[in-house]
Amino acid sequence: MKIAVDAAGGDFYPENPVKGALEALEANDILKVVLVGPEKVIQKELSGCDYPVERVEVFDAPEVIGMNESPAQAVKSKPDSSIVKGLGIHHKGMVDGFVSAGNTGALMAASAFILGRLDGIIRPTIASYYPTIKGMSLMIDVGANLEVRPEMLFQFGSMGNIYARDIMGIETPRVGLLNVGEEKEKGTELLKKTYAMLEVLPSFVGNVEGRDILLGKADVYVCDGIIGNILLKYGESIPDAFKTLFIPVLQKNGMSEDEIKKFFGMMAQALSPFDYQRVGGVPFLGVNGISMVGHGGSSPRAIKNMILNAVKMAESNINKKIIASVA
Amino acid sequence: MKIAVDAAGGDFYPENPVKGALEALEANDILKVVLVGPEKVIQKELSGCDYPVERVEVFDAPEVIGMNESPAQAVKSKPDSSIVKGLGIHHKGMVDGFVSAGNTGALMAASAFILGRLDGIIRPTIASYYPTIKGMSLMIDVGANLEVRPEMLFQFGSMGNIYARDIMGIETPRVGLLNVGEEKEKGTELLKKTYAMLEVLPSFVGNVEGRDILLGKADVYVCDGIIGNILLKYGESIPDAFKTLFIPVLQKNGMSEDEIKKFFGMMAQALSPFDYQRVGGVPFLGVNGISMVGHGGSSPRAIKNMILNAVKMAESNINKKIIASVA
Repeated sequence: MKIAVDAAGGDFYPENPVKGALEALEANDILKVVLVGPEKVIQKELSGCDYPVERVEVFDAPEVIGMNESPAQAVKSKPDSSIVKGLGIHHKGMVDGFVSAGNTGALMAASAFILGRLDGIIRPTIASYYPTIKGMSLMIDVGANLEVRPEMLFQFGSMGNIYARDIMGIETPRVGLLNVGEEKEKGTELLKKTYAMLEVLPSFVGNVEGRDILLGKADVYVCDGIIGNILLKYGESIPDAFKTLFIPVLQKNGMSEDEIKKFFGMMAQALSPFDYQRVGGVPFLGVNGISMVGHGGSSPRAIKNMILNAVKMAESNINKKIIASVA
Repeated sequence: MKIAVDAAGGDFYPENPVKGALEALEANDILKVVLVGPEKVIQKELSGCDYPVERVEVFDAPEVIGMNESPAQAVKSKPDSSIVKGLGIHHKGMVDGFVSAGNTGALMAASAFILGRLDGIIRPTIASYYPTIKGMSLMIDVGANLEVRPEMLFQFGSMGNIYARDIMGIETPRVGLLNVGEEKEKGTELLKKTYAMLEVLPSFVGNVEGRDILLGKADVYVCDGIIGNILLKYGESIPDAFKTLFIPVLQKNGMSEDEIKKFFGMMAQALSPFDYQRVGGVPFLGVNGISMVGHGGSSPRAIKNMILNAVKMAESNINKKIIASVA
């Protein structure tokens, strides 16, 4: 099992991707990693580390795609970037997957372009873990497809169902369609048609409303990329926003500095499901390969978790199951 | 100033609408109310109350539209319902506005049908208050229009701008377009065209992302009714969901029953912006009249606040300003 890691992606490269890759090696004895990026930069980062040299390769990719570059343009104009090179060696079968904390749009474009789509898949998608009071759910799509057709939403539901079952370990994932009401006849023509298609899934729970998300009424929330993207970022903003709302209240109630500190410690525990570092990264689904993207600010731990998720995806043969599900 | 109140709407009628109306009379000396609903039921509720009889009228409307009835069907088949009668007397100029905690869909349909649209307005809309760390913002649309055109979103922004300024008291409301990224070229064709149209508003702050909502980056969030409806209900679910997430953490940290109680008291204070009772109700904008709807579970206080908001709308001549803004 060999995973390529983008060592030139995210806000803290090469340090965090390199450290995360080495942490993944500690967690999985049979894993090998290929660090993709500017060779000298990576070697310099590695030189300060203690690691199993026989399980680490460096693959030179001198160009770097910035976090804010226009995706399509960047992928086209930088064939020697870590993203294009890393996905290239995956496409050639030299590695079992590719992970990056880099430019999400560029990764999506390059994944679709270089790896290609799986047989029968209309459009690849990005799914994201989403916190609920019952544990992690999956939201699909979260920004790759802003305009969708019923067949696409159906495929998102099918792919999400398989990912939730095989990678997240949810035995029979409940698939729900985000809508403005529970009744079958609610929403637009698009949503009504999607509802009818999703009914073939044995664990389809119907329409779910905004209030059902945090309550965990479904394990897989199906939506277009605009709704998913807005909800994903909204969720990420909750811990900091709540801290801001609580501070004046705690002070007004006469709590001491120490008590406030203890309070925020408990708050961090309670809101830990909203900590994107725990899951590490999210998958592109529907591409002919294993490609994952993490938050730009990913810590080494987040990168490690993303690599281990990619391993799980490769081991589970998820793509064969996806092809079968939409056939 | 005379406001008609649906005394047969919501989960707790006639008690809450009647009590709320009487509380509004206490708060505003020159206000009169017309209680619309089954006369006997209202008289019975009133008989136990102490109130200024000369400022309260009862208007008989024997039919009741249930909370889950199909909107269009209910409005058509129940001409003697409180919703149809109440909007009818408003349309005839007998009252200055109508408020209800009843079936939102039926209220929207009846408001558009009975009051009609304002000159130049393509489609009436529902706006809702939305909590942020900087205070209340306005989200528009939250469920009336699931499929929109750029011109409609532009009008939502214009109407929201006026409501936020004149009714919410925000001097120069910042209007933002909910989107997947900040840059002007982000999103669908629909969103790009809407962006270009909204630029004429002097306080347009451009695209805002999901993470910007709670941070209060805008005062008016413009979106289609699917996104707005999902975000509205998601926000409403936060306090209870968080309580559920906190309980095991507080117990694990050895907090006593009393301490947990105190904690949840502080939490309720911090999350009070998410308490829909404070604002009471939300307006239908773009209809030729003043029509507001409250949560089905509205308390008397919520109904009172909704009535006082309707008074503010009538006093500010908001509809004349809306017509001028889209002319």
